[in-house]
Amino acid sequence: MRREIAEQPRAVAATLEAGLPLRQSLRHSALDRRHVLLVARGSSDNAAIYARYLLEVHSRRQTSLAAPSIATAYGTALDLSDTLVVSVSQSGATEEIVHTQEWARRCGAATVAVTNDPDSDLAGRADHAIVTMAGTERAVPATKTYTTQLAALAVLATALAPDLHALDQELGMVPAQIQRLVDRTDVGPVSIALGEAAEVLVTGRGLVYGTALELALKMEETCLRPVRGLSYADLRHGPMAVVDDQSVVVLVAAATGPMSSTVTALSADLAGRGATTIVLGGDAVLRATTLLVLPGPDLSELLAPLGLVVPGQLVVEALARRLGLDPDAPRGLSKVTQTDPRAGTLS
Amino acid sequence: MRREIAEQPRAVAATLEAGLPLRQSLRHSALDRRHVLLVARGSSDNAAIYARYLLEVHSRRQTSLAAPSIATAYGTALDLSDTLVVSVSQSGATEEIVHTQEWARRCGAATVAVTNDPDSDLAGRADHAIVTMAGTERAVPATKTYTTQLAALAVLATALAPDLHALDQELGMVPAQIQRLVDRTDVGPVSIALGEAAEVLVTGRGLVYGTALELALKMEETCLRPVRGLSYADLRHGPMAVVDDQSVVVLVAAATGPMSSTVTALSADLAGRGATTIVLGGDAVLRATTLLVLPGPDLSELLAPLGLVVPGQLVVEALARRLGLDPDAPRGLSKVTQTDPRAGTLS
Repeated sequence: MRREIAEQPRAVAATLEAGLPLRQSLRHSALDRRHVLLVARGSSDNAAIYARYLLEVHSRRQTSLAAPSIATAYGTALDLSDTLVVSVSQSGATEEIVHTQEWARRCGAATVAVTNDPDSDLAGRADHAIVTMAGTERAVPATKTYTTQLAALAVLATALAPDLHALDQELGMVPAQIQRLVDRTDVGPVSIALGEAAEVLVTGRGLVYGTALELALKMEETCLRPVRGLSYADLRHGPMAVVDDQSVVVLVAAATGPMSSTVTALSADLAGRGATTIVLGGDAVLRATTLLVLPGPDLSELLAPLGLVVPGQLVVEALARRLGLDPDAPRGLSKVTQTDPRAGTLS
Repeated sequence: MRREIAEQPRAVAATLEAGLPLRQSLRHSALDRRHVLLVARGSSDNAAIYARYLLEVHSRRQTSLAAPSIATAYGTALDLSDTLVVSVSQSGATEEIVHTQEWARRCGAATVAVTNDPDSDLAGRADHAIVTMAGTERAVPATKTYTTQLAALAVLATALAPDLHALDQELGMVPAQIQRLVDRTDVGPVSIALGEAAEVLVTGRGLVYGTALELALKMEETCLRPVRGLSYADLRHGPMAVVDDQSVVVLVAAATGPMSSTVTALSADLAGRGATTIVLGGDAVLRATTLLVLPGPDLSELLAPLGLVVPGQLVVEALARRLGLDPDAPRGLSKVTQTDPRAGTLS
């Protein structure tokens, strides 16, 4: 896992290089598609959540996440003739995702697959495939396949945006920003605090909401502790009641954007309830609310998620080792998750 | 809370009676609206998740949940001229929801408000209001305002369905089914098991997914313990790794529908990891997998959520008292949650 985290600058650069030439063709396919529907599970779903915000905020295209059971369990026929369906799966082999893409095609959708395997069913059956250039990922927790998915989805969002080239310069800065975070993150104090926590929450909102969910999932599956990811808003609706001096809350934030005052107020409120707060990224005002800070990338909120997850990945890997666990092969998980076991199979 | 749970048969009947005559007008407004976008937070969001599945499976209308921050934080202009926006808020006064409805109108959407206050801003500014007839709700945890939201949203789904009257007979049976569950639920063994649990998960999928999320939220805010709601599918992606003999998992299921074999397999898998399982509803095969069973309504999967939550509400109320807490006024929550405190206000 540690080695694959370090491979991300190169993998993201390769994914951008392979993806950017596809934009004119993607743009053409999406011309008469007013809606985008994303299909994914697990870490890929967290990448899709980032794409949802980027496609709405930057590309101005109404976007939502599919409920795969509509296709796989209910088999409901919907009219998707105005919709671009984007399926995201590292392996391209998860039956639920392949099945849902086929359903979408039958419903009239144009289809784009984002996958690490160009020879997979998912890629082969899609109108377009954006291949993530992560190479083989050996550790069970997704790291470089996740950040390259973000890069591929950013390519797609720019292809659908009013100005195709608006983010090109900043996209070119992403690999170096990831490299800086790999080199300079000090995981010590934060992994000690997380190791001592009774209850861990990770919170983000808007463009960085998916990053918070991904870090919660990664920490849970790698460190085998229940961890929840919540938006700043949903945290205030109910779960806030259980925050106390036994809680550690990781606040994920970009350095720019309209969420700055919201997350700074939230940090103060959490501290007022006795919680230990950790800031990942954020601006100087937010970072001043706590002593436990992880660096973020020097990127705008639109692209910050491509780097922001990296210090979190490093912390998760260090925390697993601190807890005596093997971060490369967590208990009870396999690399390709089949969500719906066939009847009669219970595992 | 206990008294308001018992008021639900009458409140749901009154909501159906008030809502059904609005259907022709709702149907007319939605004729040229191919998409439905739901706007909600907290318990109302859990009601909206049910509506999302019902509107897709029964009404065959592509439906998704809004990210309110697109409106409130990013102020992104989207083209919603083909969309019906449905805002769900008990009070009709949550600024975030009112603001998002106004944004949707400016983006060209037709608007429907589902609220318990006909004089609220939300109702007054919508093209249509479906008023939930719950009366004043005094307990902080939503019970009768939640089930009447489900009833109002079912009215809307039938208004948009190919056959307006397909569910009419079954809708008429709902109040009596809720009454039966209020009268006959034995909360004892289940509330004892939950009281002793180190880690509680609640899981559902498809039409009953929202019910699982609502019970998790209710248990968390009322009993002040961290509880997670997950779909059967997402539970297999990661969180399954932390299920062990300290876990209690509540499996929420309808008596009919395509999820039956999936949830039965999941129950066996959880038991194999040593977890204590509780079944809420389900069919006879699922109920046979455990000794801890709560009854469900005698309704099809499409309408089961209107009754299924009720035994769960009763358990939550009993569990809070068992833990020495006041279920009517949990610590740290107020009846109307303002998600985005104004700058300078930290509470």
